[in-house]
Amino acid sequence: MIQCCCGMPHDLGRRGLLAMAIAAAVVPARGHAAPASAGPADPAVLDDLVVANHILFDQGVVDGFGHISVRHDKDPNRYLLARSMAPALVAADDIMEFDLDSVPVDPRGRTPYLERFIHGEIYKLRPDVVAIVHSHSPSVIPFADTKIALKPMNHIAGFLGTGAPVFDIRGAGGPATDMLIRNNALGKALAVTLGPHPVALMRGHGSVAVAQSIRHVVFRAVYTEVNARVEAQALAMGGKPEFLNPQEAEAAMKTNDGLVGRPWELWKRHAEAKS
Amino acid sequence: MIQCCCGMPHDLGRRGLLAMAIAAAVVPARGHAAPASAGPADPAVLDDLVVANHILFDQGVVDGFGHISVRHDKDPNRYLLARSMAPALVAADDIMEFDLDSVPVDPRGRTPYLERFIHGEIYKLRPDVVAIVHSHSPSVIPFADTKIALKPMNHIAGFLGTGAPVFDIRGAGGPATDMLIRNNALGKALAVTLGPHPVALMRGHGSVAVAQSIRHVVFRAVYTEVNARVEAQALAMGGKPEFLNPQEAEAAMKTNDGLVGRPWELWKRHAEAKS
Amino acid sequence: MIQCCCGMPHDLGRRGLLAMAIAAAVVPARGHAAPASAGPADPAVLDDLVVANHILFDQGVVDGFGHISVRHDKDPNRYLLARSMAPALVAADDIMEFDLDSVPVDPRGRTPYLERFIHGEIYKLRPDVVAIVHSHSPSVIPFADTKIALKPMNHIAGFLGTGAPVFDIRGAGGPATDMLIRNNALGKALAVTLGPHPVALMRGHGSVAVAQSIRHVVFRAVYTEVNARVEAQALAMGGKPEFLNPQEAEAAMKTNDGLVGRPWELWKRHAEAKS
Amino acid sequence: MIQCCCGMPHDLGRRGLLAMAIAAAVVPARGHAAPASAGPADPAVLDDLVVANHILFDQGVVDGFGHISVRHDKDPNRYLLARSMAPALVAADDIMEFDLDSVPVDPRGRTPYLERFIHGEIYKLRPDVVAIVHSHSPSVIPFADTKIALKPMNHIAGFLGTGAPVFDIRGAGGPATDMLIRNNALGKALAVTLGPHPVALMRGHGSVAVAQSIRHVVFRAVYTEVNARVEAQALAMGGKPEFLNPQEAEAAMKTNDGLVGRPWELWKRHAEAKS
Repeated sequence: MIQCCCGMPHDLGRRGLLAMAIAAAVVPARGHAAPASAGPADPAVLDDLVVANHILFDQGVVDGFGHISVRHDKDPNRYLLARSMAPALVAADDIMEFDLDSVPVDPRGRTPYLERFIHGEIYKLRPDVVAIVHSHSPSVIPFADTKIALKPMNHIAGFLGTGAPVFDIRGAGGPATDMLIRNNALGKALAVTLGPHPVALMRGHGSVAVAQSIRHVVFRAVYTEVNARVEAQALAMGGKPEFLNPQEAEAAMKTNDGLVGRPWELWKRHAEAKS
Repeated sequence: MIQCCCGMPHDLGRRGLLAMAIAAAVVPARGHAAPASAGPADPAVLDDLVVANHILFDQGVVDGFGHISVRHDKDPNRYLLARSMAPALVAADDIMEFDLDSVPVDPRGRTPYLERFIHGEIYKLRPDVVAIVHSHSPSVIPFADTKIALKPMNHIAGFLGTGAPVFDIRGAGGPATDMLIRNNALGKALAVTLGPHPVALMRGHGSVAVAQSIRHVVFRAVYTEVNARVEAQALAMGGKPEFLNPQEAEAAMKTNDGLVGRPWELWKRHAEAKS
Repeated sequence: MIQCCCGMPHDLGRRGLLAMAIAAAVVPARGHAAPASAGPADPAVLDDLVVANHILFDQGVVDGFGHISVRHDKDPNRYLLARSMAPALVAADDIMEFDLDSVPVDPRGRTPYLERFIHGEIYKLRPDVVAIVHSHSPSVIPFADTKIALKPMNHIAGFLGTGAPVFDIRGAGGPATDMLIRNNALGKALAVTLGPHPVALMRGHGSVAVAQSIRHVVFRAVYTEVNARVEAQALAMGGKPEFLNPQEAEAAMKTNDGLVGRPWELWKRHAEAKS
Repeated sequence: MIQCCCGMPHDLGRRGLLAMAIAAAVVPARGHAAPASAGPADPAVLDDLVVANHILFDQGVVDGFGHISVRHDKDPNRYLLARSMAPALVAADDIMEFDLDSVPVDPRGRTPYLERFIHGEIYKLRPDVVAIVHSHSPSVIPFADTKIALKPMNHIAGFLGTGAPVFDIRGAGGPATDMLIRNNALGKALAVTLGPHPVALMRGHGSVAVAQSIRHVVFRAVYTEVNARVEAQALAMGGKPEFLNPQEAEAAMKTNDGLVGRPWELWKRHAEAKS
């Protein structure tokens, strides 16, 4: 029996004590209470978030690592993200709520991702952003590591515009990090590099994509990987690709933003048939 | 309740009004009535068209985007094409009929593909063509963007002849399009670039393949992608491939045109086992 | 009712007449009778042949095209090969018997492969060979077309020895063939190029592999493709691979010849689980 | 009926005699008795070992060849390894126990892998190592054959540190081996090249990975292959990748060592759903 901060004694048992220990580890060091919840999110948004986790695995964007979040539909200062686990296995009960400092509202013993700060800091700097994907999708990494510009090979990847910026953690984190965005300062540095772009690459790590909805960000994450594969082939062939010019890229992105429902239905059916 | 063009009052409801709005958007601006139907198509052709949609997805030629059409077997001035949706999910009821200006005969609330004009304009200029595939198959795009010639690496791709021509939309559409073939003028420009060839590449976009039947065009679309992958490997290895010469390519195409039933049976069984 | 060559009148119907027409097309032009059968083959050999067809598809060596034969266990002057169809769909009843001139013993309306002469002529020149695979496996074609030597990257492909010879049909067939080995003269030219090797590449076409059993030739066909992929990667990276030297290749081949049962069991289970 | 070494007459039959012959072949030539068993291993370890065999196949690290072992949890001088078979098909009863000279404790007619000496000799020289994978994973071979350094492209492969050393069997085995680690002397030479590293490449062969547990070594084997693919793409693009520096690699490895359970759960579910 312990005395809770609510003033009531509780018999928590081993599981409850573990949950509290984990919660303690993720609340701000200054001893602030856990942030208040924005209340239940729209079930349709939650459902899309779970499905998006499965799609990103099925389409080869994430493997055991990587994550996707959505801004809370009731409060722009809260976001939703699965607990630390493989995206393919995420279910509704694994979704946690965070404030924009990436402090969990009610962890209930669930461990959050080490890199949740990517999400919180981008939501702070980018009020237009509603959903974020972080991944190590394999064809993108060579662009992050070589600084060869990742640019749109066709209209589907028009959102890449004039090329994705590259974030190098050595700038904000020094030469000896474990490469992870493990705190708000690193998250903010990444968000600043991202700037107004839909995609940023991360040297020695992977990439991040942002958009106005879960379906849009899944579209961008999938086609960032596809475009990287296509551009890599063109370069390996010894070619000099003629990329979309900025006007073409912008116009194509606008058109495609109206069409994201089409691949979403396909990917959803494909991913859910397997799970 | 609204007054229909047939003279009768109907209670259409929200769905019906939406259908009319969409139909209005695709009837010619000059206010022409919807074109007359050529009547029911041969059920075997319709069945092949549905199966072809599934095969093209299963073989990696299309993903959520891309489409295949067939000229109507009762009237060379009509063609059949699915409504705007992922090819893998197409069923018989999704097939729409169009005239060669790409005006739908009876949309019934079904949204047509933005790029249906590819089909109509090629059918106009190429009376020999019975079926058309448009896709963004990934290994072909590097050839479209770099102008490295896509040529037959082996007899199976003999139809590529002396190389596929490349269409750049900047010629007919200017420097700021969204890359899509969204009207008859752009469709015609693409058809002119295609000329007498079985395949044309589209810069910053993908490709189009044409043939004398659904089975032939599926064969060509699949092996255009396979050949692109094989040629890309040869070039990345630093090799100078000895392509089929024009006589070999022509002779091989003639032989293979008699053999398309063999892979069709395989692909059909493979695709339908999954759906 | 027609008068058969056996002297008996038969009511063949449309199907029977078609079968006769096909048989006529494949009996020697000189009017020779069909060759005598060597009798029923060992059921275990037939079963391996059917399974091998499925494995070659499942492992990506053949698609709708390509074929595998085995020398008849009762008569070295006969061989067994499926009728013209996709290997993945072959069943026992599709297996036909041929003499070494590639004349079918009893076609029963079944169309033979156009390129069966590959098999007959190699069996003539190579008494040590018991099984043959012909394929267009994709990673091998760049080596056939560029003359970059295909050599063993590791012990598993030791059978490649000092490199696979390349057959160019222009030598024996002139500059305007459809690339196919459609007669005994072309088959013999290919067999001469193969010489004592286990694998020969075919310019603008694919490759052929031979071995002392069905299981050995499947092993070689699969790992020829795997080795081509691995060597292509090394070359695309800008590397100069250190291949197995001739002694290493020979020793490795001998060892692996004793181990082909291991992948066979795996591939068989994998292929048959899907069919 | 034969007289057994236990003093009892047995009717072994053909199968039993074969088992004895095989056992004889693997007991030390000096006539030593079979080593004593360390007793039953922890069932959880055995279960992980069986699952790891399946995962390595499902993730493309092994095909019909390759193997994984674990040091016995009751005795550091014993290790556990499947009999000679395709890893995908391994079940609990296929697991054999060996001493560090790689002599089987109780073969019971089961043939051991020819290259078991890789495991015994590494366990001798590396007391910190608990599990070992040997594979021919395809993307790694080009690095082994060209001596292009395999280095960490992102944090997930931090364990690669400053690059994996390359073992050339010609040093210890001369110029005419079959490339296999068929005895303790060759195994020791490989172990010496491995030194303190988690991964060593083997020229003309494949690679070996080691770690502190089955789950850690599976993580390393999978991501060695992934990293090789990613690095190969960067090089084929003509890029000069900025690899993780030694401090970053070390820090990333430490972090990831705490996260191996996450992909393990995913891979296990994926592999077991298929078997």
